[in-house]
Amino acid sequence: MRVFVAQLNPIVGDLEGNTQKIIETLDRARAKEADIVLFSELTLCGYPPEDLLLHPSFIDAQERYLEKIIRASARLMVFVGVVRRNTSKGEKPIFNSAAVIHDGKLLGYEDKRLLPTYDVFDERRYFEPGMTTRIWELKGKKIGVLICEDIWQHAGYVGYTQYARDPVLDLAPMKPDLILNLSASPYQFQKPDMRVKVCSKCAQTLHCPVVLCCQVGGNDQLVFDGYSIYVDEEGHLRQMAKGFEEDEMIVDLDAPACPCPFTYDPMKDLYQALVLGVRDYFHKSGFKKGCLGLSGGIDSALVACIAVDALGKENVIAVTMPSRYSSKGSISDSEALANNLGIQLLEIPIENPFQTFIDLLNPFFQGKGPDITEENLQARIRGTILMAISNKLGYIVMSTGNKSEMGMGYCTLYGDMCGGLGVISDVTKQQVYALCRWLNREKELIPQAIIDKVPSAELRLNQKDSDSLPDYAIVDKVLQGYVEEYLSPEEIASKYDVPVEVAIDLVRRIHRAEYKRRQSAPGIRVSKKAFRVGRRYPIVQGWV
Amino acid sequence: MRVFVAQLNPIVGDLEGNTQKIIETLDRARAKEADIVLFSELTLCGYPPEDLLLHPSFIDAQERYLEKIIRASARLMVFVGVVRRNTSKGEKPIFNSAAVIHDGKLLGYEDKRLLPTYDVFDERRYFEPGMTTRIWELKGKKIGVLICEDIWQHAGYVGYTQYARDPVLDLAPMKPDLILNLSASPYQFQKPDMRVKVCSKCAQTLHCPVVLCCQVGGNDQLVFDGYSIYVDEEGHLRQMAKGFEEDEMIVDLDAPACPCPFTYDPMKDLYQALVLGVRDYFHKSGFKKGCLGLSGGIDSALVACIAVDALGKENVIAVTMPSRYSSKGSISDSEALANNLGIQLLEIPIENPFQTFIDLLNPFFQGKGPDITEENLQARIRGTILMAISNKLGYIVMSTGNKSEMGMGYCTLYGDMCGGLGVISDVTKQQVYALCRWLNREKELIPQAIIDKVPSAELRLNQKDSDSLPDYAIVDKVLQGYVEEYLSPEEIASKYDVPVEVAIDLVRRIHRAEYKRRQSAPGIRVSKKAFRVGRRYPIVQGWV
Repeated sequence: MRVFVAQLNPIVGDLEGNTQKIIETLDRARAKEADIVLFSELTLCGYPPEDLLLHPSFIDAQERYLEKIIRASARLMVFVGVVRRNTSKGEKPIFNSAAVIHDGKLLGYEDKRLLPTYDVFDERRYFEPGMTTRIWELKGKKIGVLICEDIWQHAGYVGYTQYARDPVLDLAPMKPDLILNLSASPYQFQKPDMRVKVCSKCAQTLHCPVVLCCQVGGNDQLVFDGYSIYVDEEGHLRQMAKGFEEDEMIVDLDAPACPCPFTYDPMKDLYQALVLGVRDYFHKSGFKKGCLGLSGGIDSALVACIAVDALGKENVIAVTMPSRYSSKGSISDSEALANNLGIQLLEIPIENPFQTFIDLLNPFFQGKGPDITEENLQARIRGTILMAISNKLGYIVMSTGNKSEMGMGYCTLYGDMCGGLGVISDVTKQQVYALCRWLNREKELIPQAIIDKVPSAELRLNQKDSDSLPDYAIVDKVLQGYVEEYLSPEEIASKYDVPVEVAIDLVRRIHRAEYKRRQSAPGIRVSKKAFRVGRRYPIVQGWV
Repeated sequence: MRVFVAQLNPIVGDLEGNTQKIIETLDRARAKEADIVLFSELTLCGYPPEDLLLHPSFIDAQERYLEKIIRASARLMVFVGVVRRNTSKGEKPIFNSAAVIHDGKLLGYEDKRLLPTYDVFDERRYFEPGMTTRIWELKGKKIGVLICEDIWQHAGYVGYTQYARDPVLDLAPMKPDLILNLSASPYQFQKPDMRVKVCSKCAQTLHCPVVLCCQVGGNDQLVFDGYSIYVDEEGHLRQMAKGFEEDEMIVDLDAPACPCPFTYDPMKDLYQALVLGVRDYFHKSGFKKGCLGLSGGIDSALVACIAVDALGKENVIAVTMPSRYSSKGSISDSEALANNLGIQLLEIPIENPFQTFIDLLNPFFQGKGPDITEENLQARIRGTILMAISNKLGYIVMSTGNKSEMGMGYCTLYGDMCGGLGVISDVTKQQVYALCRWLNREKELIPQAIIDKVPSAELRLNQKDSDSLPDYAIVDKVLQGYVEEYLSPEEIASKYDVPVEVAIDLVRRIHRAEYKRRQSAPGIRVSKKAFRVGRRYPIVQGWV
């Protein structure tokens, strides 16, 4: 029995385009003599469709497109992720389902039972949980179907939630010969490894192979990494699809296959996730050109590299915008980097608008010395210049702030926070360094001077980040403890060996900066807990 | 039997302050010889606490504060909204509960059964639904307890969701003598009226009086309007607490009371909601001063009035920032308004920075004529000026865009969209006019010239909103049909008598502007469906 695993990159809501992709895939599967074609979760509408699901016309249209898919399924058994209307009484009017199709006929549906409603997932907002578990048959083989989260509870990897049911155990008495899983499981740092373990555990419990098909591609803040999986009945990994691109994987259940070692490079993965996140954000919305400000610092250098890999060097413009406080290196290092990358660099000094604003505002600020106002002013002038380039020349601005800065609010609203996409806003400062070292592993792409210089916003004379913040190693520990692990400052102090008053201060800063992040560009999520997507805090609160 | 209804305005997360308010209320209730004290839903932590609920230390702390409340409950029966830990097996580790306390002892809890997970509500993200229904007794009276949503299903007013259970009917066989409801039901236009109907329906079904205690106050984007309710066993409204302020209501169940006519003014309500939203956003975060740009148009005029009522005229600064394209009226009308309101008006012309940017950017834009770039540039210079005033003088900027503009994307990111709070971003242009007429009902507070002038952004010569948009009456109909009612463009065309190609175009614009709104200031929600809070759409999508 041959299973064709279709790891596709759908566009959310593009029912026409996604259907065409699905039908073309069915043709290729027939050509490769597949018996079964397995798609990912909600392939037809793309994941996550969010509130598009609340439009009756959107649900109607999916039913029409599913008809086309059914008609195109000759000689194949197809498992495709679709929305199904709930025709019986229930809390919500739709299910998140797998349509099971065979040779031109719809056999029925398997509905998702466990609906994640935590972190980035809001499935209870839309869907009714499935209540039944069936076995589907082909050539005498009994096939069980699980949809994404359905398989996770069994391995104990679900956060915050402890479902009352375990769909893997529900299947046990039915003695399936094969488990198929349709997934849309977003990338986070080191998650692909976890997904293999989840499949292995299921295979070991049910004593049968597991084939899991993952969505791939960037959709707004989420990046889906692909890496579809085939594990044998003992839980050994036998095949894995490519990461971060569309792929097809033919699983021949009858052919002998060697265990496939899963050696993966977390840094490479992280970089690829960012590249794919940028590329799909641009290309799926019909844009191809991006611009960014190069400060001479490490963050914008990294973003420039990602942008070039995502969009092509001919589609990236960098802008250096020196001020009276800029170091010499801010221009020369930016030039060296732009040279290495082969991208155009514009030089637009901000002294004139800066002095003009100072003169204009001076009568209203009399008696007050320079403070954060003048620093923010410089950042906002730069933001305004980048947005003018965006408007006039058709480039989307890429924001270059990292997670450590965003966490602390060490950034200027409407200034360096300008942009359509926060490329590294979920990458900590320490990960930024690690990624740059990884990029330079063979030759010096990012000038070493950029990596070596002391972090500075260069918004006043001799400014350093360390004037305002503790060492980034400490900042990143507190972010980890508070944002990802929900520890109290006291617990953070003890677990990460940070002075408790520092932990308290940084946790306060995280909350105080909530109002800035609420207006930040959407950022590509690559961690367990990103700001904005999947993290919901009041701006005004009296707890911290 | 005397029920003391404590309509309080808690600060989300401020367990210390909220506990103090609760304990002081118990003292007052004893002084008024109350038997029962009824608080609102989650009074202890304030609603909505959002992801603060994910911190174990936050849940622990609530348990400690509840102990204090219990100790302060001598001679009273108290129903107070708290988070309760789920100690048995269940999907989520906490319940949204009423702690039932009598004379220094905790009798137990009633858990919320229906957990809204739609619109602005995410309760399934945090809470396990309650499964049991109990009767609590005092002086021989049987008391049933419902928490907010629990009472709504019965009246059929729940949107999208159709719960399998009806807690009102669950209570019927227990023949309660009194129903208490703890609510945190956010204001939306004309909702207070609906809430009375919901209580009446419950009273009629159970043949007993219903007393409902509502939270009051603004918490980020949500405004809670108060208007706590007492309806008798026939469903007639007998008493109602004040709207939009803290209030105490003594319900004497044994005393005869006349039906209380509920005459309310929807425009006054809407205005009060906006005022309270501004006031609490500022005051609860420790700020008292606000600034805004006055363009001479109707939107900023309305926001100035709201700001003065919310913060006091001495705490509001307005700024007029004329450009080469500003009409004469833009300054003189602003001056007249500032005079009427008694607020300071700064005049800061933007010509110098505008020309400076033009000259700076000109070499990079050669060969391209003026376009949206120069329009946005003016808006961004104004935003930068307001933010400099904010930084230097400590004023929070209030954003003045209305819902119709925000829906269409007729606004400049990092320009007029700058601000800590979107004061009228959920008020349509037609409602803006209605509110201004209402404000002027007795004397001309807003100069008639401002109300009468043709809407214009004044960002190029002789510009009018109607150059870019259909009449606002049409825009507002399409917003209503698409955003609130989830109709297709064809359905909108037919229901609201709008040409179908106009409906299609405007729906496209709504989706295209998603990226702007994602970076907009949080806005005060006053409609059934506001942008941002309670509305989640992909930026990149292929449906529309």
